Amino acid sequence: MRFFSDNAAPVHPKVMAAIQAADVVDTAYDGDALSRGLDARFSSLFGREVKVLWVPSGTAANALALAALCPPYGGVICHRDSHVQNDECGAPEFYTHGAKLILGEGKGAKLSVEEVERVADAIANDVHRVQPHALTITNATEYGCVYTPGEVAALGQLAKSRGWGFHMDGARFANAVATLGCTAAELVEGVDVLSFGFVKNGAMSAEALVFFRSDLIEATERRRKRAGHLLSKGRYLAAQIHAMLEDDLWLDTARAANAHAQTLAEAAKGRLINPVEANELFLHMSPDEAAALRAQGFQFYDWAAGEIRLVTHWASVESEVEALARAIERL
Amino acid sequence: MRFFSDNAAPVHPKVMAAIQAADVVDTAYDGDALSRGLDARFSSLFGREVKVLWVPSGTAANALALAALCPPYGGVICHRDSHVQNDECGAPEFYTHGAKLILGEGKGAKLSVEEVERVADAIANDVHRVQPHALTITNATEYGCVYTPGEVAALGQLAKSRGWGFHMDGARFANAVATLGCTAAELVEGVDVLSFGFVKNGAMSAEALVFFRSDLIEATERRRKRAGHLLSKGRYLAAQIHAMLEDDLWLDTARAANAHAQTLAEAAKGRLINPVEANELFLHMSPDEAAALRAQGFQFYDWAAGEIRLVTHWASVESEVEALARAIERL
Amino acid sequence: MRFFSDNAAPVHPKVMAAIQAADVVDTAYDGDALSRGLDARFSSLFGREVKVLWVPSGTAANALALAALCPPYGGVICHRDSHVQNDECGAPEFYTHGAKLILGEGKGAKLSVEEVERVADAIANDVHRVQPHALTITNATEYGCVYTPGEVAALGQLAKSRGWGFHMDGARFANAVATLGCTAAELVEGVDVLSFGFVKNGAMSAEALVFFRSDLIEATERRRKRAGHLLSKGRYLAAQIHAMLEDDLWLDTARAANAHAQTLAEAAKGRLINPVEANELFLHMSPDEAAALRAQGFQFYDWAAGEIRLVTHWASVESEVEALARAIERL
Amino acid sequence: MRFFSDNAAPVHPKVMAAIQAADVVDTAYDGDALSRGLDARFSSLFGREVKVLWVPSGTAANALALAALCPPYGGVICHRDSHVQNDECGAPEFYTHGAKLILGEGKGAKLSVEEVERVADAIANDVHRVQPHALTITNATEYGCVYTPGEVAALGQLAKSRGWGFHMDGARFANAVATLGCTAAELVEGVDVLSFGFVKNGAMSAEALVFFRSDLIEATERRRKRAGHLLSKGRYLAAQIHAMLEDDLWLDTARAANAHAQTLAEAAKGRLINPVEANELFLHMSPDEAAALRAQGFQFYDWAAGEIRLVTHWASVESEVEALARAIERL
Repeated sequence: MRFFSDNAAPVHPKVMAAIQAADVVDTAYDGDALSRGLDARFSSLFGREVKVLWVPSGTAANALALAALCPPYGGVICHRDSHVQNDECGAPEFYTHGAKLILGEGKGAKLSVEEVERVADAIANDVHRVQPHALTITNATEYGCVYTPGEVAALGQLAKSRGWGFHMDGARFANAVATLGCTAAELVEGVDVLSFGFVKNGAMSAEALVFFRSDLIEATERRRKRAGHLLSKGRYLAAQIHAMLEDDLWLDTARAANAHAQTLAEAAKGRLINPVEANELFLHMSPDEAAALRAQGFQFYDWAAGEIRLVTHWASVESEVEALARAIERL
Repeated sequence: MRFFSDNAAPVHPKVMAAIQAADVVDTAYDGDALSRGLDARFSSLFGREVKVLWVPSGTAANALALAALCPPYGGVICHRDSHVQNDECGAPEFYTHGAKLILGEGKGAKLSVEEVERVADAIANDVHRVQPHALTITNATEYGCVYTPGEVAALGQLAKSRGWGFHMDGARFANAVATLGCTAAELVEGVDVLSFGFVKNGAMSAEALVFFRSDLIEATERRRKRAGHLLSKGRYLAAQIHAMLEDDLWLDTARAANAHAQTLAEAAKGRLINPVEANELFLHMSPDEAAALRAQGFQFYDWAAGEIRLVTHWASVESEVEALARAIERL
Repeated sequence: MRFFSDNAAPVHPKVMAAIQAADVVDTAYDGDALSRGLDARFSSLFGREVKVLWVPSGTAANALALAALCPPYGGVICHRDSHVQNDECGAPEFYTHGAKLILGEGKGAKLSVEEVERVADAIANDVHRVQPHALTITNATEYGCVYTPGEVAALGQLAKSRGWGFHMDGARFANAVATLGCTAAELVEGVDVLSFGFVKNGAMSAEALVFFRSDLIEATERRRKRAGHLLSKGRYLAAQIHAMLEDDLWLDTARAANAHAQTLAEAAKGRLINPVEANELFLHMSPDEAAALRAQGFQFYDWAAGEIRLVTHWASVESEVEALARAIERL
Repeated sequence: MRFFSDNAAPVHPKVMAAIQAADVVDTAYDGDALSRGLDARFSSLFGREVKVLWVPSGTAANALALAALCPPYGGVICHRDSHVQNDECGAPEFYTHGAKLILGEGKGAKLSVEEVERVADAIANDVHRVQPHALTITNATEYGCVYTPGEVAALGQLAKSRGWGFHMDGARFANAVATLGCTAAELVEGVDVLSFGFVKNGAMSAEALVFFRSDLIEATERRRKRAGHLLSKGRYLAAQIHAMLEDDLWLDTARAANAHAQTLAEAAKGRLINPVEANELFLHMSPDEAAALRAQGFQFYDWAAGEIRLVTHWASVESEVEALARAIERL
């Protein structure tokens, strides 16, 4: 009974079927019809013209996005607990050629307009200090919280007013949309580039890098190739993404994951460190309690001292989730 | 009737079956049993202890290998017509942080010991000139020729005597082994890192980066992560590689591709620019002749003026190959 | 009456004389006798064999040192208020090719063993997190405080026990040695590379990069050249350094600067934010008070809100220092 | 009697005087009046508004210029024998973050419009190949030849028509202007950035990076700082440049160097490998002949087999030059 990670989930059957349907002789790289069709598909989803590149990992998506938005001598404001800062082994620094991540704080791994202003205003505008060129947020956040459309738009406005690029790490964008009940389009106001994640949500190895600014696409195509991320059989990646978008499968799978998380959240009410707004839970839990759960077969990661993390996903088994909920209540 | 590229080939059914067999909840990244099993599998193949990382593209494999072997201020000797120089949009420069590719010449995209010595000896050993730190060759080469075990070993010895790392781009390593009738182990004497290609030979999105020197692995694991190539569902990549190695599938598919190329080579004897030792043919052909072939439904790339390239692969259809052979004879 | 910066100071007459004495036809780059003589000179100063490169700026010295000690995928622990983090526009990230600065805290811009351990131990040792590879401290610090020989040695021991490189930014190393009354050798126990500053202390454009580990020198010579810091007329830089070391001029000038700072410190006792252990003072001071001083002709920088910075140097004019001391007392 | 290098020359007395005149307390970095005055001074020289940054070396100037003109994923067309390719230990690759130098050929280290077109047109415009983004030439060239104003303008027009940046390495720009008898302005038509060299021509450690496009200046100021080239006592560099421009000292010194070269050229007429159009001579000379000259006290570098290089400079001693001329005639 694994509650380690949504990366542990298998591939959704419809995605697997799409991969097999793509299994014919076709044009290499991204010259195939499936890859070529992504722009139109996402333009339709977002209700405006966008450009889209597939990449095989979220880290690649994020790092390419930041490289598109920030020069080597610039900085990117992000949360201290963000994935780009903590979980990518320096991918942003690699792809941007040494830009600096400038860290802000905030409950639930969320940045507020005030905090971003505070961080930025503390940086003297001279040639000695690295200047911010971009802002990146994660939605849903690394702590399973969401930014509302209004919060995103406000940060987007701030970025625009300062002349910064604005990136959203949407590794769990689907979970955020599902929780908020808004449309995808409503949640990206002011965003320049979105890492639209699918791997944690049912796909095998395909994320979409969505550009709301067409001027960034050409350089990014070069950077993607140069990074070894222009896979030679791209149709198998594009097929995954199309399958995820077909009939809103991405929302169905996210809703399932979120619902599992709510089941656990209710059982763990008094222990929640952050509101549960996606598919991750962070709970206060003593080592003894954690050991007790593990003794019953539940697997999960410790987080900080006295804290654990639980992650649900589209393929979490309802009976296992229920069993865990009951076990937590019994502690 | 497509003779564009082996990247256009579909995925071998046994590989697809392996992907589906891997489709269960499992540990993320490369913590799963399939990923963990690659070291043993390749150690057995090569008859000595090796370390292996999967990566999703040959460009990533090559660039990571060169970054492991050459510092940012160093140079890598390669052939003027090599993939690393011409077809990776500067991936080696990106991953090495600006090392210089130092170009040599040679028929069939092959470097000889003499040529490599000539190139190296022309570089004054002072602080102003970029010094060679590594040598890379492609086997089979970009022009469909092979280095014999003896040729590889001689270059390896040269590299060792100069203190250079030695890398082999084996995007078509299988085709070379199949042509030479040697073992895989016999073809890597002196090689430090091998990019062992599978995607052109039946896989979907998995190449193996094989380290014959264990001291290079830890840094490369970091670099792979940092480059966004540590995919979160790595078991689907490892599964492809295991399937390709099972019962020597990799040799069967390479032999099939090579045999198709020989059928064409015989028909095009007088037109061959290079000996046909793998699955690529480069032919002298006038624009009119090329047009005539295309009018019959054969698709392929022009190369230089008056030259075309034909590529066969494991899934090339025998009747189409025969038809092309006859059409070439009729020209 | 300028108390802005020690960079504003002129060049010491003995340094200027040495520059003129070097003004003959000589070998280019660092092939001249003065450049060649630095190793011996510093080996004598430190009482053990060291290797020394001149560079024209402290930022270059620091960044080359960190590049020698930390790979692109690694991290460097430094103080949140350090020069490398705040005042070099990302030079460490540029020279290391994207290593991450990992920030610690501490009064007076000093890092303690405990703080460094706290920072390091919070980083999970997995492939997702950037791992520390080096530790850098500044002595005297950016806030005019000193690390004692014992504190340096303890940090050096920690670095060694963790397998990290250890760098000291000694832009004001002379001021620290002068304050502590120790020898230069006593203040570098465990240090791998020292940026030994001269420009703030009487020189024009020459700092010494001192390697206590000879294995780092060759790569750094390449990096220096590649960065454009191997000036073609290096003898004019080497001459400055020799002049600064001759008869301990570097200590004389540092003592003078420190004495001026003490004069001010005594006058400003109640206002000191940090102990004054070098040539910089940070004072609590209201905007009105600062304005009052400026109205009397004293020039200096505001620091944070309600704080000012005063810097003295070897050429500060005693009467001006006295005048400022009295003016502060009168506030 | 040294004919090794113009870098071996001492500093012109007027430059040394200017350095001493600048030796007062002043604003740090480039906030001083001398640094601030460079824009106006060069704008007057070139007859249009330019922006100018001092840097301490020609390698820094060139590398910063190329980084301003070419993205990391782009290429820079240059001559196979250019300084940026051969003598900077990869500085262009370091500063551009891995751009590729694309090599052309041409007598006297000169690129023609036809050659540049040939090189560029051989590069398929797809995502796999590094695309040219800039063109750089050296004037006078590394072989002591000059591009005429017409040749420069034609290359500039080509660059513009292709959308490339155009850089001139003017380490010996003065020698070219002096030879051609044109104005500085006439020799930079179409040039975006000029590395205007002074160190080989009488200065100590200051080159001017001249921007004919103001949009490139801000990023370059950041890059200069980040590279450690924003020296803290910049006034000593600016002073050198002002002194060189005062009363056309730069032309006087270049004319002197050129005249010495002409004296030697006449004596060596039958041996010249390239026309002598600046202050460098490349001569056919057997090892025995070279030894004979050396036995008479003349010092110089061997170039290729059977070739030597002689370099004159502003401070070459007329009697020594005459002696060498006679000695060559006597061979």
